[in-house]
Amino acid sequence: MKTPPPADNATELQQVVDALRGARQRWRHAHRRGGDGRELPSRELLAAMVQALSGALFPMRLGPPTLQPEGEDHYVGHTLGAALTTLRQQAALELRHDARQRGQARPDGDAAELATRFLRTLPRLRELLDSDVLAAYQGDPAARSVDEVLLCYPGLRALISHRIAHELYALGLPLIARVVAELAHAETGIDIHPGATIGPGCFIDHGTGVVIGETAILGRGVRIYQNVTLGAKSIPTDGDGHAVKGRPRHPIVEDEVVIYAGATVLGRVTIGRGAVIGGNVWLTRSVAPGSVVTQADSLSGEG
Amino acid sequence: MKTPPPADNATELQQVVDALRGARQRWRHAHRRGGDGRELPSRELLAAMVQALSGALFPMRLGPPTLQPEGEDHYVGHTLGAALTTLRQQAALELRHDARQRGQARPDGDAAELATRFLRTLPRLRELLDSDVLAAYQGDPAARSVDEVLLCYPGLRALISHRIAHELYALGLPLIARVVAELAHAETGIDIHPGATIGPGCFIDHGTGVVIGETAILGRGVRIYQNVTLGAKSIPTDGDGHAVKGRPRHPIVEDEVVIYAGATVLGRVTIGRGAVIGGNVWLTRSVAPGSVVTQADSLSGEG
Amino acid sequence: MKTPPPADNATELQQVVDALRGARQRWRHAHRRGGDGRELPSRELLAAMVQALSGALFPMRLGPPTLQPEGEDHYVGHTLGAALTTLRQQAALELRHDARQRGQARPDGDAAELATRFLRTLPRLRELLDSDVLAAYQGDPAARSVDEVLLCYPGLRALISHRIAHELYALGLPLIARVVAELAHAETGIDIHPGATIGPGCFIDHGTGVVIGETAILGRGVRIYQNVTLGAKSIPTDGDGHAVKGRPRHPIVEDEVVIYAGATVLGRVTIGRGAVIGGNVWLTRSVAPGSVVTQADSLSGEG
Amino acid sequence: MKTPPPADNATELQQVVDALRGARQRWRHAHRRGGDGRELPSRELLAAMVQALSGALFPMRLGPPTLQPEGEDHYVGHTLGAALTTLRQQAALELRHDARQRGQARPDGDAAELATRFLRTLPRLRELLDSDVLAAYQGDPAARSVDEVLLCYPGLRALISHRIAHELYALGLPLIARVVAELAHAETGIDIHPGATIGPGCFIDHGTGVVIGETAILGRGVRIYQNVTLGAKSIPTDGDGHAVKGRPRHPIVEDEVVIYAGATVLGRVTIGRGAVIGGNVWLTRSVAPGSVVTQADSLSGEG
Amino acid sequence: MKTPPPADNATELQQVVDALRGARQRWRHAHRRGGDGRELPSRELLAAMVQALSGALFPMRLGPPTLQPEGEDHYVGHTLGAALTTLRQQAALELRHDARQRGQARPDGDAAELATRFLRTLPRLRELLDSDVLAAYQGDPAARSVDEVLLCYPGLRALISHRIAHELYALGLPLIARVVAELAHAETGIDIHPGATIGPGCFIDHGTGVVIGETAILGRGVRIYQNVTLGAKSIPTDGDGHAVKGRPRHPIVEDEVVIYAGATVLGRVTIGRGAVIGGNVWLTRSVAPGSVVTQADSLSGEG
Amino acid sequence: MKTPPPADNATELQQVVDALRGARQRWRHAHRRGGDGRELPSRELLAAMVQALSGALFPMRLGPPTLQPEGEDHYVGHTLGAALTTLRQQAALELRHDARQRGQARPDGDAAELATRFLRTLPRLRELLDSDVLAAYQGDPAARSVDEVLLCYPGLRALISHRIAHELYALGLPLIARVVAELAHAETGIDIHPGATIGPGCFIDHGTGVVIGETAILGRGVRIYQNVTLGAKSIPTDGDGHAVKGRPRHPIVEDEVVIYAGATVLGRVTIGRGAVIGGNVWLTRSVAPGSVVTQADSLSGEG
Repeated sequence: MKTPPPADNATELQQVVDALRGARQRWRHAHRRGGDGRELPSRELLAAMVQALSGALFPMRLGPPTLQPEGEDHYVGHTLGAALTTLRQQAALELRHDARQRGQARPDGDAAELATRFLRTLPRLRELLDSDVLAAYQGDPAARSVDEVLLCYPGLRALISHRIAHELYALGLPLIARVVAELAHAETGIDIHPGATIGPGCFIDHGTGVVIGETAILGRGVRIYQNVTLGAKSIPTDGDGHAVKGRPRHPIVEDEVVIYAGATVLGRVTIGRGAVIGGNVWLTRSVAPGSVVTQADSLSGEG
Repeated sequence: MKTPPPADNATELQQVVDALRGARQRWRHAHRRGGDGRELPSRELLAAMVQALSGALFPMRLGPPTLQPEGEDHYVGHTLGAALTTLRQQAALELRHDARQRGQARPDGDAAELATRFLRTLPRLRELLDSDVLAAYQGDPAARSVDEVLLCYPGLRALISHRIAHELYALGLPLIARVVAELAHAETGIDIHPGATIGPGCFIDHGTGVVIGETAILGRGVRIYQNVTLGAKSIPTDGDGHAVKGRPRHPIVEDEVVIYAGATVLGRVTIGRGAVIGGNVWLTRSVAPGSVVTQADSLSGEG
Repeated sequence: MKTPPPADNATELQQVVDALRGARQRWRHAHRRGGDGRELPSRELLAAMVQALSGALFPMRLGPPTLQPEGEDHYVGHTLGAALTTLRQQAALELRHDARQRGQARPDGDAAELATRFLRTLPRLRELLDSDVLAAYQGDPAARSVDEVLLCYPGLRALISHRIAHELYALGLPLIARVVAELAHAETGIDIHPGATIGPGCFIDHGTGVVIGETAILGRGVRIYQNVTLGAKSIPTDGDGHAVKGRPRHPIVEDEVVIYAGATVLGRVTIGRGAVIGGNVWLTRSVAPGSVVTQADSLSGEG
Repeated sequence: MKTPPPADNATELQQVVDALRGARQRWRHAHRRGGDGRELPSRELLAAMVQALSGALFPMRLGPPTLQPEGEDHYVGHTLGAALTTLRQQAALELRHDARQRGQARPDGDAAELATRFLRTLPRLRELLDSDVLAAYQGDPAARSVDEVLLCYPGLRALISHRIAHELYALGLPLIARVVAELAHAETGIDIHPGATIGPGCFIDHGTGVVIGETAILGRGVRIYQNVTLGAKSIPTDGDGHAVKGRPRHPIVEDEVVIYAGATVLGRVTIGRGAVIGGNVWLTRSVAPGSVVTQADSLSGEG
Repeated sequence: MKTPPPADNATELQQVVDALRGARQRWRHAHRRGGDGRELPSRELLAAMVQALSGALFPMRLGPPTLQPEGEDHYVGHTLGAALTTLRQQAALELRHDARQRGQARPDGDAAELATRFLRTLPRLRELLDSDVLAAYQGDPAARSVDEVLLCYPGLRALISHRIAHELYALGLPLIARVVAELAHAETGIDIHPGATIGPGCFIDHGTGVVIGETAILGRGVRIYQNVTLGAKSIPTDGDGHAVKGRPRHPIVEDEVVIYAGATVLGRVTIGRGAVIGGNVWLTRSVAPGSVVTQADSLSGEG
Repeated sequence: MKTPPPADNATELQQVVDALRGARQRWRHAHRRGGDGRELPSRELLAAMVQALSGALFPMRLGPPTLQPEGEDHYVGHTLGAALTTLRQQAALELRHDARQRGQARPDGDAAELATRFLRTLPRLRELLDSDVLAAYQGDPAARSVDEVLLCYPGLRALISHRIAHELYALGLPLIARVVAELAHAETGIDIHPGATIGPGCFIDHGTGVVIGETAILGRGVRIYQNVTLGAKSIPTDGDGHAVKGRPRHPIVEDEVVIYAGATVLGRVTIGRGAVIGGNVWLTRSVAPGSVVTQADSLSGEG
């Protein structure tokens, strides 16, 4: 390999550095960014935080391999302490970013207080996640023990992240919540918007390709298979053709509903308690409690 | 950011630690867990084991970038030795967990012996995987060399993990096997249950969303595209509504079958040798050898 | 756990090492490989390179959490320098591998020059990616800020990797390009072949299961949802049944087209400017500009 | 650089591996070693243990930079738990090694119990070390705060390790104790045998080259400078010319003694309370309380 | 190994945690510490900072092995930027600690400004260090090249750290300076107080055991061998017997002086220009320019 | 902490980067350096190489804690392979640097061949080191087992590094040899020039401050304590006052000699077989076999 003369390489590199600076300045000018320091929370730090929280929630199963029983509470306390420190810092970044977005000099919220309020939700999250573990064990013929579910099932990992993300979202940290959700999406292929409300005992099997939208509401004991979409029917746009943000536009799924692989449910419709939606069904209307909807129905109903 | 007084924060943290201990104790009481030490194998250690085995199987292509030819066998031997040590420890954890589940004082199997038996299967696995590499190269117009397949194709990575997981499953280590399978699922979006039997020369293209169930059997030279499901038709439940575990409930796919993207095949049906299943087909019946099934057929046949 | 006598274990291990060597030799003989040193680029090194390039493109948002404004250009220059060193080495490996494949003694290209030419494309890539960020922000009602898009959206991460991979592909480094693409596929579930041509302002929402083929061409402002396939209709084979490589076989998608979740478009068809393809549509024919194609149309049209 | 043909290199490497095996077998035969697994504790693991203990003893000064007040006890508990796990394992290795040395089938002691007994000594060690910190602060005109002493002074670091090592030695773990002592020696140049008894309020300034022997006894408030040796006068040998092990052979240094740089005190002599030993003094006799010994004295006395 | 019952172990651990908290509280009460967060700079972070500065001063020799010429300035800028960030944080910790020590509510200095002022000294430090490299090369018959000196000689490494530490000390950061000095002491066995003033072209050969005190002043071209002490003669104490801090008490060593191994020079004496002090000499008086002092002289002179 | 405006900080940083470049250019101009890429071997890589070689020489005692007996040879082979790769690269750097120093276009030696020749010496080094282990065990009353010696004694660690460095020096790689020696010096305080010749069965006790010069020759069974110098009497200089390099100038120490702590032996003198040199003795003349030299002798003899 012939090495070009150093001077030339250095010049090339400098030109690219300069051109990239130009591109950044154009962007910052267009979007009124100051470029004054780290602007956003960090994926890496939040990923570590979620891992710490998972270990603190389930120390003997998701914690470090060397953990001994006598150190369990200390591990939990220490890990939560570290997670809390991260959350305070990252929350402060989000609040500042949000204030800057809205042209305010100071953030409205108090990052330390939000972090403490999040901390308090963890025991309740653990109880919810225990109900999800049981649901997976009881719903899957291939599951041999409740522990296997926690260790292996991507649906469970997605729910751990979602239940964390949903609390953060509710506390007013939608950006951090979204990062937490996307980290789980990257690992599991399951894409749950942190705004979605999911009741206890949820079971998502296989999970790849599942999408659950921001305003979706799922009751108790809902079971969902791979490639199911609970989405919006169409996206309302404003005069400029930009999406209008924030209004209810995803399905309500009542208790004990089962939705098989590949089914698509769109819009603010309601799937009544105990209904079964068959594989690959395409559904844009509400369904009565106890109904069974299969592909043929949906085709005749929808076509 | 106003820092709350330390004493309060410490109290808050301690209360959450206490509440989480309470939640763990309730769970352990309900599930008769003793909380006496690490209960389960470790995802992190098994992930490292799979990476070591991949390098030992394909040292010059998946091993360390600095590997030199004269050190190839030593690298293989050293890496296998380390993987074996991990497998013995993790297998002992699974056997103990399994004995505890069944109320036995001692495990039935011998972890060291199982690990040694697994070791012996590796040369055969390498031959099988070589056949998969060739199948991908011959089946994909975008493939430029056999090496590109091994390096890039998620289908190949999923098959390396599956062939390892399947042996572990057959040796009586279903939990470790499942972790290995889910690690590949997380990376590739391809979800193959370790119980599934897959013949040589298998090619899974793109792969995201593929699901192959526990009792599925695939012959030689099968080709599968993204979002194909080889699943169970329905899940039989016992008197309590819990899934009945273990019986054959997934398809048999004979030699040289091709299944295009998005097709769903459910139940213990047989796709005959050389059949072609079109994209998005929904299939719950057997298909004769050499048949071509397209979406219209499936709709008329199934609807 | 009873430990078998060391001598036996050592013998077992040696036998497996020997058998694996035998398997490698058979493969190398069959494929005329020399086993003379590292044959292929390294996924790990290329993954680090992509992360470095992402940070250099968006230093305050994807760079290190501790980056300060006064160090921004130095970080960019340093990171690009390191990425360039990696690219030169990896490109040299690919060129040598390619020459070996074709029985040539020496590579045609010059790795250092290719790396420098790649470097020069980065400012243009940044501008393209800025257009993608804006498209996502304007197209998704759940997006709260342009920054959230860059940090969270898998579609954006896939496009960063694709735009890098596409340049590498165009420069004659298809293997490295493919590794870059597959790294993004593993993280996002979005599988874009590096050969695909994608115009500015592209938005891929959710993304899991999206497949875009090697010869696909997408215009400006195209919007795509999860599980959309832009694929080949069938794979032409030569006399031996092996795939014929390289000819145009994937769709052309014109400006401002929207393709909803689960739609499948196969073959060298053209989707005209501004057309909307509905969810789950199966399409193997061209579509006029401005058309709206829904599932019923496609079924009647295709069945 | 011309690469020799691979086969030759591989042969060379194999020959060296074989010759090294031969050397190991000769050693093991001569020393009746079985080569049956890891024989000795690990420097790396013990180094991590000492660092963990240091952090647990002084969390806000030697613990992690990110530690927050509310997490202090949890950090201490978690870190001690991890250190305890390491100590149990390493102590078991030492006990087994010791039993093997003496031809016994089983160790005499119980590693877990020894580890627990060590744990109980920590609060007392902290009080001792607090007295050492004060002594250094009061004795050094360059010290500006008690905290600087803990953070910077090698004498303090050596005493932290020594006080840990001395307890381990007293509990019957002389090998682990020695490793702990040598780790401090490597870092500070201060070589204190774990058997040495050192009273509270000890101050070792600069410290490089200090040697304190196995049976030395130092009272309260002793001050020592660099290159001081408290050694044995001569080494008694048995009939084979090998050293006779274990008998008292190093000095007794009473309370409030000061020994200046480069002084050498050899044999089981006593330096009386409050005595001052001048720089470079060579001393092999006892000294009365309150004496001042300078170089001239020592030369006339010793020469 | 018999595992004691978990409950007991947990109790033991908790008791030790409680007792350690008690010890901390007694200390904090006695020394009026608040325990309110990290009190002191971090050795680990400062060690990384020194390594970064060394690389920035000598990029092609002490920087990363992969550094390429075209990236040299970017590496320097990026590394300095990171070192500056660390220095600002650590300096803020020291200033706060210092204010707390003196009972002030706010620090006097401005950490960011001090860090910037330190930054400006680096080009001058590089010139000084270049003179030290030359002095070592010219003074040691075993040195084969100027580069060997920089890479290998502990004396050079100690001087890099000292010249950094001396600037920090002069800027009013004596604690950070001391940590930097002690890190070098631990690595090289050379203990130079950051307050010592050292002229250009200094050469410290071998170096182990060298001690240079806080108020020592060394001229240009001084050469020093192992175990040389430039110390204080005696330590003045106040009414409580505590050391009086801060007054000139170490030697002045003029230009071109050579001091051989083991020599000890104590007190505010002056070694005149070009003097040679022999090995093991013990010296507490001034020496005229050009003198040669050997052991016999010193004995007669001092004894 | 008030943050200065970014622009100013960026300017400050850039000015320092520019000034450092200026300093580098002046140095390079003065020393005719091209600044064309990494000039020197890397301490970090050589440190890793020494650790790898130590593990390969003593796998069950200095190798990884998890090593199992059946993997011992594979570990040795793999580790040597990696060390060899490093040595080839680093040797090539030294040879190029040496050629550049002497104004030659190409290195004289062949790095790969030197590395292979070094490899062959390892079995002999292991035998030598076994003799050193025995000598330490037999010579130290505090040693309880041969294994303790290998694990703990800094003298042994220094000899492992020295025996490696001495071979590298003899092969014509004096710079790499020196780095290896200085790494051991930093860890142990024992400074042995790689040129020194040391016979089997050497024991260096405590070791801090020991200096052994380039042309020293030690026979079989020599025992040395801390702070012993085997140095040069004076340094001959050329017309410019620069040291004349390379001629014999350090002591010859015959078989079974013992040299106690603090003794200094200077010049090309011979200490006859079995002689004993007392503590702190200053010696610049030869000593007959079997003599005992104590401090009084030396003073009368030397003064």
